[in-house]
Amino acid sequence: MAKEDVVLLDFWASPFGMRARIALALKGIQYEHREEDLRNKSGLLLETNPVHKQIPVLIHKGKAVCESLILVEYIDEVWPHKSPLLPLDPYQRATARFWADFIDKKTCGLETRKVWTAKGEEQEAAKKEFIGSLKLLEGELGNKAYFGGENLGYVDVVLVPMYSWFYAYEKCGNFSIENECPKLIAWARRCLEQESVSKSLPDQEKVYEYALHLKKVFGFE
Amino acid sequence: MAKEDVVLLDFWASPFGMRARIALALKGIQYEHREEDLRNKSGLLLETNPVHKQIPVLIHKGKAVCESLILVEYIDEVWPHKSPLLPLDPYQRATARFWADFIDKKTCGLETRKVWTAKGEEQEAAKKEFIGSLKLLEGELGNKAYFGGENLGYVDVVLVPMYSWFYAYEKCGNFSIENECPKLIAWARRCLEQESVSKSLPDQEKVYEYALHLKKVFGFE
Repeated sequence: MAKEDVVLLDFWASPFGMRARIALALKGIQYEHREEDLRNKSGLLLETNPVHKQIPVLIHKGKAVCESLILVEYIDEVWPHKSPLLPLDPYQRATARFWADFIDKKTCGLETRKVWTAKGEEQEAAKKEFIGSLKLLEGELGNKAYFGGENLGYVDVVLVPMYSWFYAYEKCGNFSIENECPKLIAWARRCLEQESVSKSLPDQEKVYEYALHLKKVFGFE
Repeated sequence: MAKEDVVLLDFWASPFGMRARIALALKGIQYEHREEDLRNKSGLLLETNPVHKQIPVLIHKGKAVCESLILVEYIDEVWPHKSPLLPLDPYQRATARFWADFIDKKTCGLETRKVWTAKGEEQEAAKKEFIGSLKLLEGELGNKAYFGGENLGYVDVVLVPMYSWFYAYEKCGNFSIENECPKLIAWARRCLEQESVSKSLPDQEKVYEYALHLKKVFGFE
């Protein structure tokens, strides 16, 4: 595959962008990475994702695929042979999609943002809800090495980017995720032993600084 | 397939439940339909969807599949030969999933509910947003008979249940969706010519009465 066949419009701190990065790395796809300035989005981003105007956008042979969950499935369908992400069995596929959807709704949304932006009772409620969601995920992981079983799968690719934000959550929220969900943290560290993950995730300290910057700019404090 | 192999936990006015009904009808699957009382959910619902506790739930050979978009994909994967819903090409599949996700986010969410529950400026803003979303969908439909092309596809199954709520939206919101989106209404009527759709959707007047009941019970007025 020629490098110019695949372009990823991305932003370094976006967990959604990280999903695309990990999936492409697992598949061994060479691609052109274009960092977006989210306060001054490129013409290419506005043109390829006119509906949501959000990263990540994967442009493959000139065609754009948007929305990270859909984008990761697309990558898995176009390059199915190396590191298959979704299982073949329909029920197992539905289960993987269920948890991926759960992660989007319960650990990446506006409610979760209150873990690091809110104060007092509102923050405590968001932390409780967030930890509750992580515990459900920990239950789903069970004693498996990965959500995908022996190897990284769809749910792993979807969830592990959140780990890069955990330090920011913990510092801003004054709590320890590891104390609450030790098995989930062990799973995240296991994922990070793989280069496809470690090279796709930014440093937690850098994300924390970015979170502080956002709080300042948007008046969250 | 023996009838007892498939059970659908459903609620008559739920557009999400209607999606499951249409998909099963298109595939010609015999199933047991169980109507839920949403104020007094059955033990089976709580047991099969402990995370969200919502209908629809499809129980196939004793295994539960939840979340309507995932459930429709599951039905398509288990019974692929009759009325295929998702196309085979990865890019076309991603596009269908994109619009299905868009429909969930922009036409079925809490913001859209304000079309028939809110008043004044809040209602006007919700109506404007809702019509804007329908116009985007109308643009995606273009001159095709269905979103799926010559036949009903995934996006048709996902969107057409909303039509059963349009009359309630129009009466409560004092506007005409057909005036704004005539091609989309023509598409919905075309879908309703198919028995798999017409038998799966409730009467618009009955949904309107239910909407008025909800407004009264939840104090939306």
